[in-house]
Amino acid sequence: MDLPDSTLGLYTDFYELTMAQGYFFSDKRNERATFDYFFRSNPFKGGFTVFAGLADFLDLLERFTFSISDLKYLEEQGFKPEFLEYLKQFRFSGNILSVAEGEIVFPNEPVMQVEANIIESQLIESLLLNIINFESLIATKAFRIKLVSGGRPFSDFGLRRAQGFAAMQASRASVIGGAASTSNVLAGKKYGIPVSGTQAHSWVQSFDSELEAFRAYALAHPENTTLLVDTYDTLQSGVPNAVLVAKEMEPRGHRLKAIRLDSGDLAYLSKKARKMLDSDGLDYVKIIASNQLNEYVIKTLLKDQDAAIDAFGIGTEMVTGKPDASLDGVYKLVCLNNKPKMKFSENIEKTTLPGKKKLYRFFDEDGKFYRDAILLETENPNDLQTIYHPVYPEKNTSVNDLKFESILQEVVSNGNFNFEKKSLAEIHQYLLQRSALLPDEHKRFISPHIYKAGISEKLMETRNQLAIQLNH
Amino acid sequence: MDLPDSTLGLYTDFYELTMAQGYFFSDKRNERATFDYFFRSNPFKGGFTVFAGLADFLDLLERFTFSISDLKYLEEQGFKPEFLEYLKQFRFSGNILSVAEGEIVFPNEPVMQVEANIIESQLIESLLLNIINFESLIATKAFRIKLVSGGRPFSDFGLRRAQGFAAMQASRASVIGGAASTSNVLAGKKYGIPVSGTQAHSWVQSFDSELEAFRAYALAHPENTTLLVDTYDTLQSGVPNAVLVAKEMEPRGHRLKAIRLDSGDLAYLSKKARKMLDSDGLDYVKIIASNQLNEYVIKTLLKDQDAAIDAFGIGTEMVTGKPDASLDGVYKLVCLNNKPKMKFSENIEKTTLPGKKKLYRFFDEDGKFYRDAILLETENPNDLQTIYHPVYPEKNTSVNDLKFESILQEVVSNGNFNFEKKSLAEIHQYLLQRSALLPDEHKRFISPHIYKAGISEKLMETRNQLAIQLNH
Repeated sequence: MDLPDSTLGLYTDFYELTMAQGYFFSDKRNERATFDYFFRSNPFKGGFTVFAGLADFLDLLERFTFSISDLKYLEEQGFKPEFLEYLKQFRFSGNILSVAEGEIVFPNEPVMQVEANIIESQLIESLLLNIINFESLIATKAFRIKLVSGGRPFSDFGLRRAQGFAAMQASRASVIGGAASTSNVLAGKKYGIPVSGTQAHSWVQSFDSELEAFRAYALAHPENTTLLVDTYDTLQSGVPNAVLVAKEMEPRGHRLKAIRLDSGDLAYLSKKARKMLDSDGLDYVKIIASNQLNEYVIKTLLKDQDAAIDAFGIGTEMVTGKPDASLDGVYKLVCLNNKPKMKFSENIEKTTLPGKKKLYRFFDEDGKFYRDAILLETENPNDLQTIYHPVYPEKNTSVNDLKFESILQEVVSNGNFNFEKKSLAEIHQYLLQRSALLPDEHKRFISPHIYKAGISEKLMETRNQLAIQLNH
Repeated sequence: MDLPDSTLGLYTDFYELTMAQGYFFSDKRNERATFDYFFRSNPFKGGFTVFAGLADFLDLLERFTFSISDLKYLEEQGFKPEFLEYLKQFRFSGNILSVAEGEIVFPNEPVMQVEANIIESQLIESLLLNIINFESLIATKAFRIKLVSGGRPFSDFGLRRAQGFAAMQASRASVIGGAASTSNVLAGKKYGIPVSGTQAHSWVQSFDSELEAFRAYALAHPENTTLLVDTYDTLQSGVPNAVLVAKEMEPRGHRLKAIRLDSGDLAYLSKKARKMLDSDGLDYVKIIASNQLNEYVIKTLLKDQDAAIDAFGIGTEMVTGKPDASLDGVYKLVCLNNKPKMKFSENIEKTTLPGKKKLYRFFDEDGKFYRDAILLETENPNDLQTIYHPVYPEKNTSVNDLKFESILQEVVSNGNFNFEKKSLAEIHQYLLQRSALLPDEHKRFISPHIYKAGISEKLMETRNQLAIQLNH
């Protein structure tokens, strides 16, 4: 669960190590291999994915080394002394290209590319997939929640239902996607996220009465009091007691910050509670709602039912990325010693795009995202006339004369991390900028418009020739 | 993502700390509080839950302390010097009762009970929920897979799709539930799990031909060669090349261990491959299948289609506990200074069972699990005649003269961990013993028979009286 050593070299699939040893003792040892990271579908049946996890991955990659105790363990597993000697010195020395964290990305695009000798590029596969798949999933989920929250803040309350220590990355990715704060104090400390919280039912239960519990909390935290009003009966007891305490705070120069609803019908209760608060002159008291919320529930509460909710606490659904729980990202060999490679599949959709590639984003006349284009590394995007559907070439689009930009940047160069670290707030701001350029029809939850990522004619030809060779 | 300090005191929800400070500065500081851990429904719409995570939780609980840097962070968050001085000395000093790891448990049962002063019992809530909820979810999922695998081994291949560092706990819990090995080398080292793996498509692609790749692997790992046969075309190329290499291995005194199918229709391909292998005298070569497997797919492959599969590699669905992704366990105050406490809810099902309690399992005349009974701590189970449905008392059952056992044990006593650590293999064996006593109708995937956990008359009366008091 936690990492007993500070080294992470063993945080990999066993076959990466057996293959690495196989390469080590073969003449392939110094061959240069390029791997693409891409995913095959957007999570949540959505129209986009928010890329996240890069800074965490790079931090961990610097610790992807092997301790004496790691090597001893591998020796016991039968690995050979010369190979273990190699691992003792192991440090990633290759190149990594990546899109920025917070970038909006789409299926089948090579959003990360790793180039190194084949042992190094192979060994880091599991770590990369583990981190990038998960953080991108959660950042996407959180941003979907942001899209429907109408500017209301929401907080990550997910620690108790997160998948073990995934809680840490879940908090980080939630903030990239739009959460304003987290309840997870360790994540707050590690990532510089504002921490927030209210009170539990146990606080209320631990006093002889709800009113006494509320009074005690207001005295203990006069500047930051949120009262949980559903321990006994929200409208009969919780809200009236909160009103009483709010009125008692006023002469002391303090204001009740909020009440929190954590059960029952949040639309009904919030509207009733709002009226009760307002009729006592407490229009400044906010209403926070929690309890199994997700983007669909929030949308209907706010848009269909005019719920009087000012902020949300969101747990399980966000931090576990329900119902998907995973992003299907993969890491595939596309080039070896400058020879393009591909995995052929009976499903043409699953056949990989061979060769070292570049990724460009084209803009329409309004400056909005129009198409993404995948080119061979040797191609000049200025020469690109037409891009083709990767599977059905009869579907194609002219991108002639459209503005474009490269969205891949080098973040590791010959093992040097030339990566400028951004705060989570900066990453979220970048996401907001990019998302503003994504046409709204791709943001729809139900049957979103499919954003097109096409390939160049040369890439298509390379793939088709390789397919013919592989079929003999 | 990883834990920057070895201390875990901040791995908690912020409100635990604000409440703890509230208690600290009140006269409640030394009040004894008992909290129950229970969940409200079995995961996966199933008929049982496998309890797991206890040893991990207790390991972490010993590290639930605060470093200087943690305290400095809390000071910046506005916590007061005297309270920080208290946290500096913090070490859990209370009592914990728990069922054993690998026990079969059911909704609404107090399967863990924490008793300590209210600050301590409150502060550890998030850690307990985070670990126990997740490992129990995954152990249950893995055991469901075991139930349909007909004795065939399966391995955890989930690292790349696990939710970040949840991979570690997922591997552990998978093995409790029945996985024979893991691909996650760090989990193998930490938990003493056998590690296993085959090869990736990239190995095959990195050679000029599939045959060359197979030959190289067989030479590199002659004692442990599994060949991945679907990189180009399973039946046209992969299996024939594997047959060739197996035949080449024989004169060298080696045997091809297995082939692995990772795409396409696993029933169709496995039966075809089996015939091809057998017709060449390679009946000893096993067939391993992987690719988005879960208990439902495995069941239909084996029971409905006679797939010729000898072992499985299982990733995403097992290690993320799809589709649930979380167990809904909660931690509720039930007793304060010997006074029973409860949370009243508009949903009677959500009203908690007050007071310190005991948990007994009753057996039928065949020695199988018959009923579980929740009693007040003061009651003698020998005197128990009848147990009642927690919500509908007209539903009740006699347990008179039936054999029973207590399934809660003390694992922490006054802060001393008197807990005998078992290997994962021992825990899995315990699960097998217990599961053999669970009638089969509770193991059905679709509409399983509901196992009954009832309450004693005295517990019901205590709850009803408390409800009347709370309603005034």
